[in-house]
Amino acid sequence: MSKLIKNAAGRMVPNEINGEYHTPYMGVGKYKPSGLKHAPKIYSNSDFPNDGNKLVNSLKEALVKSGLKDGMTISSHHHFRNGDLVMNRVFDIAKELGVKNLRWFPSASFPCHEHLIQYLEDGTIHHIEGSMNGPLGKYTSDGKMKGTAILRSHGGRYQAIQDGEVKIDIAIIAAGSADYFGNANGVSGPSASGLLGFALADSQYADKVIVVTDNLVPFPCVPWQIQGNYVDYTVKVEKAGEPEKIISGTTEITKSPDRLLLAEMTAKFCEHTGIIKDGFSFQTGAGGTSLAVSKYFGDIMREKGIKARFARGGSNKYLVEMLEEGLIDYILDGQTFDLEGVRSMKENSNHVWTSPFTSYNYHNKGNFAGLVDVVILGATEVDVNFNGNVVTHSDGLLLHGIGGWQNCLFSKTVILPLPLFRNRIPVIVDEVTTLVGPGELIDVIVTERGIAINPLRKDLIDAAKNSGLPIKTIHELKDEAEKICGKPEKPQFTEEIIAAIKWVDGTVIDVVRKLK
Amino acid sequence: MSKLIKNAAGRMVPNEINGEYHTPYMGVGKYKPSGLKHAPKIYSNSDFPNDGNKLVNSLKEALVKSGLKDGMTISSHHHFRNGDLVMNRVFDIAKELGVKNLRWFPSASFPCHEHLIQYLEDGTIHHIEGSMNGPLGKYTSDGKMKGTAILRSHGGRYQAIQDGEVKIDIAIIAAGSADYFGNANGVSGPSASGLLGFALADSQYADKVIVVTDNLVPFPCVPWQIQGNYVDYTVKVEKAGEPEKIISGTTEITKSPDRLLLAEMTAKFCEHTGIIKDGFSFQTGAGGTSLAVSKYFGDIMREKGIKARFARGGSNKYLVEMLEEGLIDYILDGQTFDLEGVRSMKENSNHVWTSPFTSYNYHNKGNFAGLVDVVILGATEVDVNFNGNVVTHSDGLLLHGIGGWQNCLFSKTVILPLPLFRNRIPVIVDEVTTLVGPGELIDVIVTERGIAINPLRKDLIDAAKNSGLPIKTIHELKDEAEKICGKPEKPQFTEEIIAAIKWVDGTVIDVVRKLK
Repeated sequence: MSKLIKNAAGRMVPNEINGEYHTPYMGVGKYKPSGLKHAPKIYSNSDFPNDGNKLVNSLKEALVKSGLKDGMTISSHHHFRNGDLVMNRVFDIAKELGVKNLRWFPSASFPCHEHLIQYLEDGTIHHIEGSMNGPLGKYTSDGKMKGTAILRSHGGRYQAIQDGEVKIDIAIIAAGSADYFGNANGVSGPSASGLLGFALADSQYADKVIVVTDNLVPFPCVPWQIQGNYVDYTVKVEKAGEPEKIISGTTEITKSPDRLLLAEMTAKFCEHTGIIKDGFSFQTGAGGTSLAVSKYFGDIMREKGIKARFARGGSNKYLVEMLEEGLIDYILDGQTFDLEGVRSMKENSNHVWTSPFTSYNYHNKGNFAGLVDVVILGATEVDVNFNGNVVTHSDGLLLHGIGGWQNCLFSKTVILPLPLFRNRIPVIVDEVTTLVGPGELIDVIVTERGIAINPLRKDLIDAAKNSGLPIKTIHELKDEAEKICGKPEKPQFTEEIIAAIKWVDGTVIDVVRKLK
Repeated sequence: MSKLIKNAAGRMVPNEINGEYHTPYMGVGKYKPSGLKHAPKIYSNSDFPNDGNKLVNSLKEALVKSGLKDGMTISSHHHFRNGDLVMNRVFDIAKELGVKNLRWFPSASFPCHEHLIQYLEDGTIHHIEGSMNGPLGKYTSDGKMKGTAILRSHGGRYQAIQDGEVKIDIAIIAAGSADYFGNANGVSGPSASGLLGFALADSQYADKVIVVTDNLVPFPCVPWQIQGNYVDYTVKVEKAGEPEKIISGTTEITKSPDRLLLAEMTAKFCEHTGIIKDGFSFQTGAGGTSLAVSKYFGDIMREKGIKARFARGGSNKYLVEMLEEGLIDYILDGQTFDLEGVRSMKENSNHVWTSPFTSYNYHNKGNFAGLVDVVILGATEVDVNFNGNVVTHSDGLLLHGIGGWQNCLFSKTVILPLPLFRNRIPVIVDEVTTLVGPGELIDVIVTERGIAINPLRKDLIDAAKNSGLPIKTIHELKDEAEKICGKPEKPQFTEEIIAAIKWVDGTVIDVVRKLK
């Protein structure tokens, strides 16, 4: 019987979701997994074509040969972002075939997948587990999905597959290029997406793997970001994605003076506290503010003659410029955000592709996230205990995924540059609506009216003294915002749980409830 | 109870070796594996250093921390070839610690490991499973090893680890370069070996993984041929290998007129039968004759304006020249044989590193071996049914490993250029001393006095007509040799089995017995 349990963060969470047991959050590093990784079947080459040619005539044929049937779990990656043309077609075929109760397990869904609401309505899809950006998030928030959504970080998704928590029956891997054997990459072809790392676990652990491409190349497709040795069927389609919606032509730094100020303060904080030093490493997200931080980092590094050992991507033209200028030895890229990123990854062996396995999987013998000196992230809310929220807005609607955000919290210093308020709603609150990241891992909040340092980071508090930067307590920042905007109303929820939020170790850190 | 069973090749093999059950050979593609791949434990980052620094002070400390104890299986790769300085030290430490009955599971051992005979004598090592080149092969052949040796191909070794047939307790991975996190490669450092692919399965499936290097580089060590996420401990030593014994300074084509003739005939055969055509692919080994075949292939391709899509390595300067000249689009490299190979792999993104997983593992959804148009291999003996032997000499001594030889037999055409006799011992015999490769997979025997085509390959027999090449039956070739040398004495064996030979699917295709 499912019951609600108060987890180590004080949040009431169910121990059963969609009929399966899930462990409540126990604290950072406290849950010790037992047991063994998911063991895929042993295959034999004798059951695959001698000449390696796994091409079938259509996506439908591949799905039928893969044994698509009621109740299966179908996975996909989101490297095609809002330009994906494959997954809507997959569920169109499922509908045609009369298949019901599928679980869709994407690494994320986008507005282009609004098409699938009809299949959530008619029972073709039972529920979605994965980040839901836009319409599907709204649909879920409205309590309309039959099952409960489960949101995981990029690393958490790898962990869930690796640990056998989510067993994938059929993985669909859309790829910029592929050969008939199933080797695939995102670095070339009209639907180039740079990387395909979000599909790595799917390829390794799914029962059946289908690669779909609109750019079939002669064997070998190099680099093989996805190894054909894991692939059952390869499908050539006319058009797999809409290029302009997969990759930005160019990424632009914010032009907002407020955001530029936040970025500049963040960079100055890193300069004065000694974080920017020879051989250091950093990660900035793809948001406008984060991009601007990279730019300011570059200015400081040039001025002081400092070189970084590596930057973690999402890559974009600003990081690529720094790499080519010699300010950074390596870009360790997790996803590519613009055409310059794709070009650089293709041309430059120091622009290295990584995966959620190398970078983020917490059930591992370590990962790259902990080796990064400083990471700059966003949030929809933080609270006075430095807890962070990235999935719900202050109005309580589930509109964002977790991405790599939770995983990056293991960086040596985590900085969140945030406006003090958005649309006159303060960003610093007493308690986050949804707990996504524990405050003990979040070190610094940079706002336009001051910088709050987590009291746990006495070293940073000391280092920031005499910096001339406006260091304040988080309570002071919260009070300032409330003086201007007033104390916001909290969203009112029903008891109905519409989504569970996983921590990096697979435990349930919080839930999202349906709004009243 | 162990008993002898006649396998599908008519060889009497035991169903129990070293106390474990092994399936007798059932024919090519006949054995269908069931069950699941070996499932490693689920680890947690919380049990590893936050900052990713896994360095320990010494190899001894790493072994002690890995829990080295009696009866364990210790694995290693052979990329350091006869220049390995690590594995002797590992067993010196085991001896110091009083540990007994270890199973050493190298991908191959070399004359430099003669040092370990003392530990086979005193019980530190119980037995060796892996190719044994030189003194350890002789020791085994003499029936002196306590356990029975098991020889596997490169792909068979991956398969055995993946399928859980061999559970590795501690994997030792010597590496040209590594970072403290455990990322490692063979492309740089004084002990550069090019690739580290033979250690891939070990890293993925062993319980504990130790990386040993004499060239510690700041994170990230790029490329990470071995991913640090699999590694428990990293050890920096003064000297891991003897460079000049790891990699040849330069590989030289044979100067023997006999061998050059074999190579030329082989190339002509491929030319006349249409195997050398635009977009074709080939693999030649590292022996002098094979190298010469590459050279003659190059001459034909240049003359006819033909380009190959890819060549599978062992890479060497001749292949590198062809790549750089544009005669080959890609080298898919499995091990690097000379400094030019290492340089090219480091510099040229079309010189791609592969692994026994991508290329050779038979318990897979296909591998690269079947996609190669023609492979040129050696053999110690072939018989009138085209069966091949590569592990024992005609005198019955076990002196060679299998390497990738069995795996390559799945290529579309397999050609063995062989002298008709060696030291006045005919190479074509009535029945091979040890069966390593089934005749149905071996297509052509090229000798200086004629070329025999397997009757199964009617297409090749037709294609070779009117070629002017001396096509003969294999019986004719055998008779010619025996007319010159006489019929050789067969080696006389006792009943005692000293080694088992695995087929690519893990079944036992033959055994080697102790000589009388």
